[in-house]
Amino acid sequence: MIDILICNDDDITSRGIKALAEVASDFGNVTVVAPNSPQSGMGHAISIGEPLRLYEYNFKINGKSIPAFACSGTPVDCVKLATAEILHHKPHLVLSGINHGANYSISVFYSGTMSAAVEGAIEGIPAIGFSLCDYDPKADMSASQKIVYEILNKYVPKLNEFPKNVALNINIPPRKYEEIKGIKITRQAMGRFVEEFDRRIDPYGQPYYWLVGKFKLQDNREDVDYVAVQEGFVSVTPIRLELTAEEVLNKVSEDLREIIREQG
Amino acid sequence: MIDILICNDDDITSRGIKALAEVASDFGNVTVVAPNSPQSGMGHAISIGEPLRLYEYNFKINGKSIPAFACSGTPVDCVKLATAEILHHKPHLVLSGINHGANYSISVFYSGTMSAAVEGAIEGIPAIGFSLCDYDPKADMSASQKIVYEILNKYVPKLNEFPKNVALNINIPPRKYEEIKGIKITRQAMGRFVEEFDRRIDPYGQPYYWLVGKFKLQDNREDVDYVAVQEGFVSVTPIRLELTAEEVLNKVSEDLREIIREQG
Repeated sequence: MIDILICNDDDITSRGIKALAEVASDFGNVTVVAPNSPQSGMGHAISIGEPLRLYEYNFKINGKSIPAFACSGTPVDCVKLATAEILHHKPHLVLSGINHGANYSISVFYSGTMSAAVEGAIEGIPAIGFSLCDYDPKADMSASQKIVYEILNKYVPKLNEFPKNVALNINIPPRKYEEIKGIKITRQAMGRFVEEFDRRIDPYGQPYYWLVGKFKLQDNREDVDYVAVQEGFVSVTPIRLELTAEEVLNKVSEDLREIIREQG
Repeated sequence: MIDILICNDDDITSRGIKALAEVASDFGNVTVVAPNSPQSGMGHAISIGEPLRLYEYNFKINGKSIPAFACSGTPVDCVKLATAEILHHKPHLVLSGINHGANYSISVFYSGTMSAAVEGAIEGIPAIGFSLCDYDPKADMSASQKIVYEILNKYVPKLNEFPKNVALNINIPPRKYEEIKGIKITRQAMGRFVEEFDRRIDPYGQPYYWLVGKFKLQDNREDVDYVAVQEGFVSVTPIRLELTAEEVLNKVSEDLREIIREQG
């Protein structure tokens, strides 16, 4: 049996992480290490200025307790602590989610769920993040569980062939299983959030600001994750760890040519 | 004159951001929006669960006050708030730093300084992050200021040619200016932090954990940022916004072929 580490960003009490752990337990020995408070939008943050706490958590799958810890830190902290202080070795697979909400396109930068998967990949472990594109904390997870099962059923028997230096970003449309059109391998859509801060005045007369951005697609390619999900497909986007923009290396060399030469 | 937004992650009181704003003020109208507390390691985190505050800050360059705001949020929050609520338009250039410490290799994922620059790039603005590879908060910034000057002197006159969907990650070795060997255009080194948590017991008998990872290079290429800095060069790495791992798209399609076909 393989060891599977489960994390998320919504927190250890969310329905999504329970749904993911249930399916994963069919494939290996599951350990859950997840935040003890909501960490959506935490991106790849780690805790430097303050120490971390771990709390044993009563996590049951089909009536049976499994090893589980709530962590005071970020999703990425959870993966680091799990490997170094709980498992004391690398798990064979890191799964993150099932996130309550979409993590396609540029959301991959902000998502704690995907950052936990990316941290697994950085540590050299096959890693997959799952997101259900439905923000309702009570969303039906049954279709997502079937998708998770299908993906794990393909990859668990051949984890040594899992692509290196990559995490898979899987987004599931908010549909019944029968109405999901299929699975597409996609590229990350380019886009951004257009910010519309909600400015309010507190009871003491001082302003404060709520972040309420709206996603705006800025991509006309058809094979991108955002479009696939809108059309009713599950999107599977492989996310890279080396961020070098290869296509502009020569241009930047040319742009800075004179100061490179002067000093080089 | 162009509008330049300055951010960082060390906080608005750090010597690095003052050093950067000083140089930038030779090239345009500078506005500083930076965290009011240290945000190192915050990555691309944004504040979702709590609102943001802005505090006017007395920031002087050569005895002259410039517009400056301390923000209660993360570095990425600072860039979003600056654009939407302070400047009310996109600046022509986003500069982040000068960070007290290296942000080469995989650190780009954890760095609040680089994430602020990346956020600028996501918003379509030319963006550069500067890091001095010296963790001493009192490190000498004079060589770094000369490097910033040289870079801005090249790019400010031709900002419309700045590469799209890219942020520049510039790391400066901890040397006197005369001892810096030059500037190299580099790739992001692959590597990871090997975690050694420092486990302690609090006065109440409960354990807590400090994150104290050590960087380990896992790359044998010579043209990577980490190696350039170790050799005494300034590294300039263009960082991409589209994270699709193009090179494994076909492999993932093949791996999942059967479930794609069954449903597609």
